[in-house]
Amino acid sequence: MDILALNCGSSSVKYQLFDWDRKEVVAKGMVERVIIGDSFIMHEVPGKETYRENSECSDHQVAIDLIIKTLLDPVHGVLKDINQISAVGHRVVHGGEKFIRSVMIDENVLDAVKEVQHLAPLHNPPNIAGIEAAQALLPNVPHVAIFDTAFHQTMPEHAYLYPLPYDWYEKYGVRRYGFHGTSHLYVSKRAAVLLGKPAKDCNIITMHIGNGVSHCAIQNGISVDTSMGLTPLEGAVMGTRCGDIDPAIPAFMMQKENLSAKEIDSILNKKSGVLGITGRFTDRRDVIENAANGDRLCKISLDIEAYRLRKYIGSYMAALGKLDAIVFTAGVGEMGAPIRERAVEGLEHLGIYLDKERNKSAMTRKRETLITSDDSPVKVYVIPTDEELVFTEDVAAILAGTYTDHMQFEYSFSRNDFVRN
Amino acid sequence: MDILALNCGSSSVKYQLFDWDRKEVVAKGMVERVIIGDSFIMHEVPGKETYRENSECSDHQVAIDLIIKTLLDPVHGVLKDINQISAVGHRVVHGGEKFIRSVMIDENVLDAVKEVQHLAPLHNPPNIAGIEAAQALLPNVPHVAIFDTAFHQTMPEHAYLYPLPYDWYEKYGVRRYGFHGTSHLYVSKRAAVLLGKPAKDCNIITMHIGNGVSHCAIQNGISVDTSMGLTPLEGAVMGTRCGDIDPAIPAFMMQKENLSAKEIDSILNKKSGVLGITGRFTDRRDVIENAANGDRLCKISLDIEAYRLRKYIGSYMAALGKLDAIVFTAGVGEMGAPIRERAVEGLEHLGIYLDKERNKSAMTRKRETLITSDDSPVKVYVIPTDEELVFTEDVAAILAGTYTDHMQFEYSFSRNDFVRN
Repeated sequence: MDILALNCGSSSVKYQLFDWDRKEVVAKGMVERVIIGDSFIMHEVPGKETYRENSECSDHQVAIDLIIKTLLDPVHGVLKDINQISAVGHRVVHGGEKFIRSVMIDENVLDAVKEVQHLAPLHNPPNIAGIEAAQALLPNVPHVAIFDTAFHQTMPEHAYLYPLPYDWYEKYGVRRYGFHGTSHLYVSKRAAVLLGKPAKDCNIITMHIGNGVSHCAIQNGISVDTSMGLTPLEGAVMGTRCGDIDPAIPAFMMQKENLSAKEIDSILNKKSGVLGITGRFTDRRDVIENAANGDRLCKISLDIEAYRLRKYIGSYMAALGKLDAIVFTAGVGEMGAPIRERAVEGLEHLGIYLDKERNKSAMTRKRETLITSDDSPVKVYVIPTDEELVFTEDVAAILAGTYTDHMQFEYSFSRNDFVRN
Repeated sequence: MDILALNCGSSSVKYQLFDWDRKEVVAKGMVERVIIGDSFIMHEVPGKETYRENSECSDHQVAIDLIIKTLLDPVHGVLKDINQISAVGHRVVHGGEKFIRSVMIDENVLDAVKEVQHLAPLHNPPNIAGIEAAQALLPNVPHVAIFDTAFHQTMPEHAYLYPLPYDWYEKYGVRRYGFHGTSHLYVSKRAAVLLGKPAKDCNIITMHIGNGVSHCAIQNGISVDTSMGLTPLEGAVMGTRCGDIDPAIPAFMMQKENLSAKEIDSILNKKSGVLGITGRFTDRRDVIENAANGDRLCKISLDIEAYRLRKYIGSYMAALGKLDAIVFTAGVGEMGAPIRERAVEGLEHLGIYLDKERNKSAMTRKRETLITSDDSPVKVYVIPTDEELVFTEDVAAILAGTYTDHMQFEYSFSRNDFVRN
């Protein structure tokens, strides 16, 4: 049984084909520049060289068709027959309040995703286009939606409601939703395994730090708070997003520079964060390198980013009551040892004893590493995330009828004998 | 020597006359509804009944003239001669980056305050009007400016810079400034006395909770972070201000309800916070009472407010490294025992052991009270604030030539033998 995972962005389609019986990734890749022109596919099969083909994709259906053709290609492909694809899992960014777990897609589900697309106007429309395209191309297999927001639907009201006119929540759904749910789910389950306790007995702070950044406070195995909000703009410093700022600033700057609501939104999302401060970089490797070479703004950018990570750790420690572990994950979380060091050093008074050598050695995306000393009351781990595996297991479990929700269902990766491929 | 402290708002002038030799408040009061019509003065002299007089004040100069006339009134006044007023201290909300301490007002200072008035368009213009009016009425005495922002000018770059386009900072001064400086100064100095250590050896979190709310992280006696930002909108939940929200929300709601930048700013400042959630209240006594009677939105409002206080405590604990004490002050901080309890209970893992009985008994604005148990590693105090005393002492010290800044200068209230009147 092969399961295809699809992740449709506005101008890209990422995919992964997973052989469920052999429990391994058969192929993965990405079609880039969909709709905007000069599109191409990058296709990876383990053990083979990456294959690239230029091919115009005027919409998501053409792109998904290209993916299927490439998977079936006699030279570069991995499938003999399209019927080997047993099911498709679709990443859907925003599920609003309607979806607290992954679901089989039917007409009602698709309608419900459309209903909340005003909350994620950049993300849900391509997600929907991808679902409809894939359904047209693979009409005889089940399609499943996996939501970025679902994991956070366990948050209590005091964490998800904003101190804003209450009717904005009732009329427009203005509340904290949170994103990166499958990543927080995956690494928190892994951390519980490393702690040697059931997830339901663990309090964990997960720090997903990539180009997008979000943190999650996990109490007894469920999300009770997260740093992203109504949109993915809130929270930590990100590659190009500002994260937390004085909410008076958007209106202040609109008046100063005569900007429209759309223009200020675009600057806060695309020209701020690390890019805003440094003026040139979003990749933290560039920032770290240039800071080491004396670039003042790069140094400030690192200072701000690490300082704000540290404050989130403290904030969620207060929210959680007691803390078993902190997890760093995603590109910067897994590879950015200097940023991790500056975020957690000097927190011994909170029970966090960083082992600087262990931290420095944790610079691979393949290994799970403890980076605190053996006697540290709070453990800090670096855990490579695997969102696609969550997609795949949700799909397989829904097909098998064994899926309920992330607390009841036992993922392969929440077992002690799990080995990552 | 009598010192007059003036605090000019857009439609009000607060005043206090302090006898420096006898170290006591001689009179205080407020002119309300200045400019907008139906103005009146409420005038309090210790030991006498409050005196009210209706008198139209078309501008701040007429209002200050009314104050001086009332102070000189044979029946209700306290002065025989206007020359008994030796100096005037003026509260100025925004000093930008130019003022890190209180200063004698001359033409250059007044120009500099005018230069930053775009950062506080609601506050600095009436402050300036008040200074000019008082200078006209009392031309022969020194006038001193005391800034809300000055105490926070010790913040490091990583705390005051936002992850926004850096040129917004250079061009428009977009950064964190912080407010309530004299209150954070006063209560942190008092906490150091209660801790029995010099202020420079103390790490303290001060929580000023009134209609406006701000928190301050104080390391070795100086402000290193604070929750209000470019404007007083950022940070905690306030009576009518939202505090921290997803910065995408202003533009999102502008588009949903077709609002201008000014309109959204007004809603976030005047219709949000406790009022936004409850729909009816800003006074926390009403919220607590109605929550106890089962009002769902009042209960949620308290939950959100206390939860966010708790998160700020954790956040600043991580920022400070080690913590000696937390101080609650201002109306709600001094009187709102249930809110304090919910903000700090269950934080034993962070070294905070609340004594619930002590907390309940601390319901007066007159006494300084320890509300943690005797063995609590972190002390929590309730300390009534006294911003006017800071104004008065700054003025007296500047006149005497003994003032440098808040770390060098020894305030009366930072001495062990200080007794509050």
